[in-house]
Amino acid sequence: MNAPTPISHLAPEIKQRVIAGEFIEALKARFASACSTAMAVREQHGRDESAFVSVPPPSVVVFAQSTKDIADAVKLAAQYSVPVIPFGVGSSLEGHLLAVQGGMSLDVSKMDKILSINAEDLTVTVQPGVTRMQLNQELKSTGLFFPIDPGANASLGGMCATRASGTNAVRYGTMRENVLALEVVSAEGEIIRTGTRAKKSSAGYDLTRLFIGSEGTLGVLSEITLKIYPLPEAISAAICSFPSIEAAVRTTIQIIQMGIPIARVELIDKNSVRMVNAHSKLTLAEQPLLLMEFHGSPDSVKEQATSVQEIATEFGGEEFEWASTPEERTRLWSARHNTYFAALQSRPGCRAISTDTCVPISRLADCLLESVEETEASGLSYFLVGHVGDGNFHFGYLIDPNNEHERSTAEALNHKLVARALSMGGTCSGEHGIGLHKMGFLIDEAGEGAVQMMRTIKKALDPQNIMNPGKIFSV
Amino acid sequence: MNAPTPISHLAPEIKQRVIAGEFIEALKARFASACSTAMAVREQHGRDESAFVSVPPPSVVVFAQSTKDIADAVKLAAQYSVPVIPFGVGSSLEGHLLAVQGGMSLDVSKMDKILSINAEDLTVTVQPGVTRMQLNQELKSTGLFFPIDPGANASLGGMCATRASGTNAVRYGTMRENVLALEVVSAEGEIIRTGTRAKKSSAGYDLTRLFIGSEGTLGVLSEITLKIYPLPEAISAAICSFPSIEAAVRTTIQIIQMGIPIARVELIDKNSVRMVNAHSKLTLAEQPLLLMEFHGSPDSVKEQATSVQEIATEFGGEEFEWASTPEERTRLWSARHNTYFAALQSRPGCRAISTDTCVPISRLADCLLESVEETEASGLSYFLVGHVGDGNFHFGYLIDPNNEHERSTAEALNHKLVARALSMGGTCSGEHGIGLHKMGFLIDEAGEGAVQMMRTIKKALDPQNIMNPGKIFSV
Repeated sequence: MNAPTPISHLAPEIKQRVIAGEFIEALKARFASACSTAMAVREQHGRDESAFVSVPPPSVVVFAQSTKDIADAVKLAAQYSVPVIPFGVGSSLEGHLLAVQGGMSLDVSKMDKILSINAEDLTVTVQPGVTRMQLNQELKSTGLFFPIDPGANASLGGMCATRASGTNAVRYGTMRENVLALEVVSAEGEIIRTGTRAKKSSAGYDLTRLFIGSEGTLGVLSEITLKIYPLPEAISAAICSFPSIEAAVRTTIQIIQMGIPIARVELIDKNSVRMVNAHSKLTLAEQPLLLMEFHGSPDSVKEQATSVQEIATEFGGEEFEWASTPEERTRLWSARHNTYFAALQSRPGCRAISTDTCVPISRLADCLLESVEETEASGLSYFLVGHVGDGNFHFGYLIDPNNEHERSTAEALNHKLVARALSMGGTCSGEHGIGLHKMGFLIDEAGEGAVQMMRTIKKALDPQNIMNPGKIFSV
Repeated sequence: MNAPTPISHLAPEIKQRVIAGEFIEALKARFASACSTAMAVREQHGRDESAFVSVPPPSVVVFAQSTKDIADAVKLAAQYSVPVIPFGVGSSLEGHLLAVQGGMSLDVSKMDKILSINAEDLTVTVQPGVTRMQLNQELKSTGLFFPIDPGANASLGGMCATRASGTNAVRYGTMRENVLALEVVSAEGEIIRTGTRAKKSSAGYDLTRLFIGSEGTLGVLSEITLKIYPLPEAISAAICSFPSIEAAVRTTIQIIQMGIPIARVELIDKNSVRMVNAHSKLTLAEQPLLLMEFHGSPDSVKEQATSVQEIATEFGGEEFEWASTPEERTRLWSARHNTYFAALQSRPGCRAISTDTCVPISRLADCLLESVEETEASGLSYFLVGHVGDGNFHFGYLIDPNNEHERSTAEALNHKLVARALSMGGTCSGEHGIGLHKMGFLIDEAGEGAVQMMRTIKKALDPQNIMNPGKIFSV
């Protein structure tokens, strides 16, 4: 009998399959039932909320329950040179979770413990699978809250990875401003801490901020320390309807330029109002509206609201309709957060291609109005919502995923919108990340030199290119 | 006649001198009178405000007047493998400017133009040599201001490089939160832009934040886009004297924990009061005091001040003394900013070793009081001031630079203080940077793994190690 062919002599394709098989065996030996190759599990981990054409799912899914689990899984992946795709709740809109180069999905959703609440310091330390709603639920009794709120009930790990924000960013900032410290598993499986619980620091490179927004391409987040805030003494929410999008936007611009410390100011166009009414059983007037919230002392809230009402009236806005109870307020904001899903329901079987441009506030009206005109002219179904206080807004183009014409029309609209935003000093992505879809836009925005610098950092920290490869940029 | 020995055959030392000579010749050919080897100029660029024992000055100083100047100087340095030390106004407290491995000081102080003020977007773009006071002077007529204010009238480039903050950080954040975009010259002399003028972005790695706090070790900042703020409608400043440091600190902790949006809250101990009285011709009571400022609408300022006075009274604080005019307010804050220089004058010929720890607010009293006791027991002259709203404070140990005992006593106190702050979840540096002095502390704080990750980034972006080598960490 001949000895078996040594692995180094095998043809590359076969060699890869042997290695993949050995890798999965090694994972199973280490993780037992927390490692799955069941097709249903793999498929669930091979997609996200985006409209991307699907690729084959990851070969294997590992459910981590501890930092050590993450480290061990990454070490095995490094040993076998297999891609690692960190997975939270799967709410990405940019294809971050797709296994475009195969590999292992590393699901951290079972790491959902709140490790410590330091109410006196206004900080909280959580595992990466904790979702934003879970965190606020657990903070409720402390009189504190965490303000960052993307539409989905995302995991905090995912929110770090995409540098997420949401409706409160106009006052409280984004994940960039609200993460104090991280524990990170490097591409070699080493456990590293970045930052401290001190409010500020100038101790060395800002590794925390480097990982915030790195989309899983530099390592896996295993622990997160966040800023939290005292619930404001008074909160008031109001809706103001406007005769046009322009009137609503010009009102917003003036609010921001006057430095009024509004907590939230969201634009909802008449399409979105119609979808939201149907989905959340509301009866809002089908006109462009601003949904606003004011935080502060009772006097300060009153003062802010009076100033904003004056500005709105100048631009033809109607009388504020106030949310009279906390429940009514929650209902309005839930409706706002569900716009994306309301829109998907409005056209059964459709998928949404969501834009994410953000421009300096002085250019917001120009950018928005030109883009609305262009989108209307295209004949596509769409909705428009915006964190307009930050200059960030989302068109959702509702396409039939099997209709190539609709898809290419939507892509062309997005392309024009991004070019317009960049020419106005803006960004192609305010809060969703680059993922698969915006790699070309990133080069347009940052320039080849800056993207090359990102690649250099990536290659240095992940020389095997195993951390979520094929996202943000091609290496 | 023999041909001259080829340079590659020369002894290493001689080879280095030949290269240095050729490098300086090349600089002179390119920069003419903007390149100086005069000893007085070199010595002025070979030191900073710290108490570090001096090292030989840089071999040459180049005065850049444009981004192209910076790029050309760095390209020549890269060609000859010569260190580049960016220089603003020389106000570092951590030895950042010392030519510990020789090389070229690249002075950007003549790049002092404000390139654009976008009042509508609350942004400004400046060259790196613009100082914080110059910027606010030029913003005066617009009703806008830039809040970050380290003690010295630092350059904005230097403030970016050290991730500086100051007295307003408690409300407005630090340089980390207030820089939107940068133009950077890489270690290869390539010009790169990071960030845009949009308020938020999730487009790729946060190169902006990577350069903020990189202390000149990754590249040279050539242009900076900052956030600016509307001058508050109302500003009130008050002094409140306390029976003890503890009473002042406990008052501060409660202000912060209650979420009162105070703009500035500075602790000044009785030693500092005495020094400041002498230097700035004031007559403040020689007791620990808080110097505070409230920003907002007239009503909100009144409301904040009332709440704070109530808290202070509870802890034995006296009636607020209000700065009744803007001039009086400016006089108080100038006195605060000059504490460091007032302290140096209090003991002719002395140098100050300044500590810079920052801890979570709940640990501030413990950290401060233990350290005060320890410092009192040492018998060293000292002063204590603090951005206590952020948990950040500075002891200044006033030593005779020629007295080895005093120096070692101060070093030992600093060491104990840092260990204490780290054990409390704090940082060794709130705002001055690591520079030369705190490399060991950085490893204690961040761990060898995180520092190794910083080194990996450094090596990838500056493979020749020419950008301010020997700072932050040894490579």
